Amino acid sequence: MPYIELPEGLPGILGPMAFRPETAKPLNELAEILLRGPSTLSPGERELIATYVSSRNDCFFCQSIHGAVAAYHLGGNDQLVLEVKQSAGQAPVSDKLKALLVIAGAVQLGGKNVLTGHVERARQLGATDVEIHDTVLIAAAFCMYNRYVDGLATWAPHEPDAYRDAAARLAREGYLESTTGLPATASGAAS
Amino acid sequence: MPYIELPEGLPGILGPMAFRPETAKPLNELAEILLRGPSTLSPGERELIATYVSSRNDCFFCQSIHGAVAAYHLGGNDQLVLEVKQSAGQAPVSDKLKALLVIAGAVQLGGKNVLTGHVERARQLGATDVEIHDTVLIAAAFCMYNRYVDGLATWAPHEPDAYRDAAARLAREGYLESTTGLPATASGAAS
Repeated sequence: MPYIELPEGLPGILGPMAFRPETAKPLNELAEILLRGPSTLSPGERELIATYVSSRNDCFFCQSIHGAVAAYHLGGNDQLVLEVKQSAGQAPVSDKLKALLVIAGAVQLGGKNVLTGHVERARQLGATDVEIHDTVLIAAAFCMYNRYVDGLATWAPHEPDAYRDAAARLAREGYLESTTGLPATASGAAS
Repeated sequence: MPYIELPEGLPGILGPMAFRPETAKPLNELAEILLRGPSTLSPGERELIATYVSSRNDCFFCQSIHGAVAAYHLGGNDQLVLEVKQSAGQAPVSDKLKALLVIAGAVQLGGKNVLTGHVERARQLGATDVEIHDTVLIAAAFCMYNRYVDGLATWAPHEPDAYRDAAARLAREGYLESTTGLPATASGAAS
């Protein structure tokens, strides 16, 4: 049960966002720009970074919904999302994305864990300054979203189907109107 | 030296914010609402929470600037800011704020570290649902800002005076125009 009284039936981050729309607005705008704004990283790549960090932070809701959005962008490839979460270095993604995932993993541990060598490696593999910047900020932002979701003990549906349907809508329509992003009727819940 | 080529002379978060104004906008809006928007927590109390989390994340720039803003709001009480950073449980702040700092410290470790008992204790001492929500989100947000600042290896002035002057301006004028918040001429730098 959530630690504060949230609007009923809204899973994960949607509960606190409905509870406090003033802060939901910049939180959604940040996600929209980072994950769907103009970028030389594809939406699928950026959602993989978000999923990877959420998985390392053990946030069930965020890794489920962003994993499903990533899979949607990657042609329904749930298996690839799983492989990135379980062993990013061996997953069938580009070497550049692997190097960016190393940076994201370092950020997840703490900003000072990002080392010159991590950034040099990404740059050697073709990463631009904006791509490195955005990787750091996506990873940092999900260290916030994950803590927001779990720090208030929000609930989350168990069923993958709930995330798949919501992910398709998020992938098409974006995060700015995402407070209606997941159905309010999921029967199972995971904290 | 920062890991990417940032506009020169801008310390801490101001460099990456000038580099990427699209993401700076929601980042500043979030800080403005959380730290200065309408709230039953004073700006000084909220800046203390931000400073405490930044200190636990070992982010020199964020703990220096928000510590200075907190001190400004608290009548120039640098000593109180120091005591909150060093030993929040013994600092001369209200029992309610102490309980909120315990929640913030748990969020800093990870969302799942916030326990029912932490929230019950804060509520017994008078904390409202919005205050608990905002404490969790302030702490989560500074886990983002801190990682953004240190993950890109930005520089920060050593001199307390640089922060004191900028803090007075931030305390008066807020975060929405904060990309001009610190002087570009600080002579010493700490990473």
